[in-house]
Amino acid sequence: MAGSEFGEFERIRRFFAPLAGPGGLGLVDDAALVDCLPGRRLVVTADAIVAGVHYLPEDPADLVARKLLRVNLSDLAAMGARPLHYILTTALPAELGPEWLVAFTEGLAQDQRRYGIDLLGGDSVATQGPAVLSLTAIGEIAAGQEIRRSGAQPGDLVWVSGSIGDAFLGLGVLRGAHLELSPPQREYLVRRFRLPEPRTELGPRLCGTARAMIDVSDGLVADLGHICETSGTAAVVEIARLPLSSVAREILQSSPDILPRLAAAGDDYELLFAAPPEATEHILALSSLLEVPVTRIGKIEPGTGVRLVDDDGRPVPITAAGYRHF
Amino acid sequence: MAGSEFGEFERIRRFFAPLAGPGGLGLVDDAALVDCLPGRRLVVTADAIVAGVHYLPEDPADLVARKLLRVNLSDLAAMGARPLHYILTTALPAELGPEWLVAFTEGLAQDQRRYGIDLLGGDSVATQGPAVLSLTAIGEIAAGQEIRRSGAQPGDLVWVSGSIGDAFLGLGVLRGAHLELSPPQREYLVRRFRLPEPRTELGPRLCGTARAMIDVSDGLVADLGHICETSGTAAVVEIARLPLSSVAREILQSSPDILPRLAAAGDDYELLFAAPPEATEHILALSSLLEVPVTRIGKIEPGTGVRLVDDDGRPVPITAAGYRHF
Repeated sequence: MAGSEFGEFERIRRFFAPLAGPGGLGLVDDAALVDCLPGRRLVVTADAIVAGVHYLPEDPADLVARKLLRVNLSDLAAMGARPLHYILTTALPAELGPEWLVAFTEGLAQDQRRYGIDLLGGDSVATQGPAVLSLTAIGEIAAGQEIRRSGAQPGDLVWVSGSIGDAFLGLGVLRGAHLELSPPQREYLVRRFRLPEPRTELGPRLCGTARAMIDVSDGLVADLGHICETSGTAAVVEIARLPLSSVAREILQSSPDILPRLAAAGDDYELLFAAPPEATEHILALSSLLEVPVTRIGKIEPGTGVRLVDDDGRPVPITAAGYRHF
Repeated sequence: MAGSEFGEFERIRRFFAPLAGPGGLGLVDDAALVDCLPGRRLVVTADAIVAGVHYLPEDPADLVARKLLRVNLSDLAAMGARPLHYILTTALPAELGPEWLVAFTEGLAQDQRRYGIDLLGGDSVATQGPAVLSLTAIGEIAAGQEIRRSGAQPGDLVWVSGSIGDAFLGLGVLRGAHLELSPPQREYLVRRFRLPEPRTELGPRLCGTARAMIDVSDGLVADLGHICETSGTAAVVEIARLPLSSVAREILQSSPDILPRLAAAGDDYELLFAAPPEATEHILALSSLLEVPVTRIGKIEPGTGVRLVDDDGRPVPITAAGYRHF
């Protein structure tokens, strides 16, 4: 951890050094070390989030930390990689003092234990503006086993893990919508927005099965579009097959028009993948084994673009592609 | 490269994708791949810089990019590692448009060629505040050859590459000082501040020779202090031996009092290392071979702390430990 501000050494020593693994060298060296097993590749991804853009300044710091970590673990899972380490840089305004840092690093510590990962190093600097948090995650995979976005083929079935749209609805709750729901229901949706569940077990198990994979961050339709674009294919999604939580289904009963918006909404961090039909049994067995719902929602076709269709195969207009922040 | 803002995909495609190497997968996948040769370790470091704190908003964007890259390469060199790749996240205010990005990425491209490295991936987001740029660099080293800060032993000689204090003087020039110098002299100092020369050739060549190494970012005295603290030793620096540029020497003639401040000033990004006396010939031969000046400035002793002494061995007060930003 390099650093020059006065107070930064102390901040790193007190708050971040306890998070470091053996390769982090106690965060007292110029750089960290990563061993790499023979026949393995390292997989690297990074995300940056900004207060007021990607999260609200008043959001609980532990949840901000855990979401930042988890969206990166989701990217690793989408390649089929197992997470190992992360590097963190923080640019923090002066008003975020020790209390915020205690909560922030407790959130990191909690998810380090949960996912079996550790901090390698990073940097911690001051800013006059809103907090900017940048995290680079490192995972590993057997060389050649990585699941790209580009391998989908016409005839493949399209699958998605978990449920879709809860994070979008949770953001709505934070903005004052869905007052008809019970407090536990609202809390469920907000939690799905604030604390995604990256599919770190399912992703690596899909190596050799999924031909193309992505995690749903920009919205199911947009992310399936990324698979189609890089694979040179089209895809059709049967909107009635979209996996929804019971809370989302309850909202749909009074607002059926919202369904296409859930297909376009983002921040789900579920795995979306294409696999040949003969893999169906294996995928369903994996779903049972890991207790992660996996739902077939459509298929890959020749052509370009993503189509939504209803029960009768009629096109459903796509209301908003991609996902907007605050 | 994950990303959600509208326009971000376009920004990544247009400005950053051309910088990506083969492992970056064209920046169209969820993560990047890094191969690791048998018997090698990866070395990872990260720095974040903020407009108005670590650089001036009006600084040329190409130099900002190159300095950010170079300070990280300097950290890798200080471990003895050879640079391979980097990951970049940018949080940019709306006023930094395509023109700024063109210059910024041209700076990166220039130094990619110079140092033989490529972009693996990252993220690019919007902020309401000042720009925050975070860079993670990845290098490699033969396993076990890494040079830590903690290996210095009493009796080792202390060496430093290049010259010390120019960056501090360059920052002074930017603030309006040293008007007595000629324009080329002022330009030389400003360039030393804005564009350090990381010792990427020398660092790896010191594996097996240097027992402890660090790069001078916080100031020579402070950074030697880091070596001493982790090594459990003290060090003495003969201030008359400090390697100075001819411009710095000229300034010293009229302001001799400034010398101890140069020893405490930062941002030099020179290599500071401890090696046993019997390595002297090898170090001087390396210096000739690589055409990088390397100067013996002191030695490691039992005890704690760093002392500055004059020609007669008398203590010189250390004026300011570490380095202050704008």
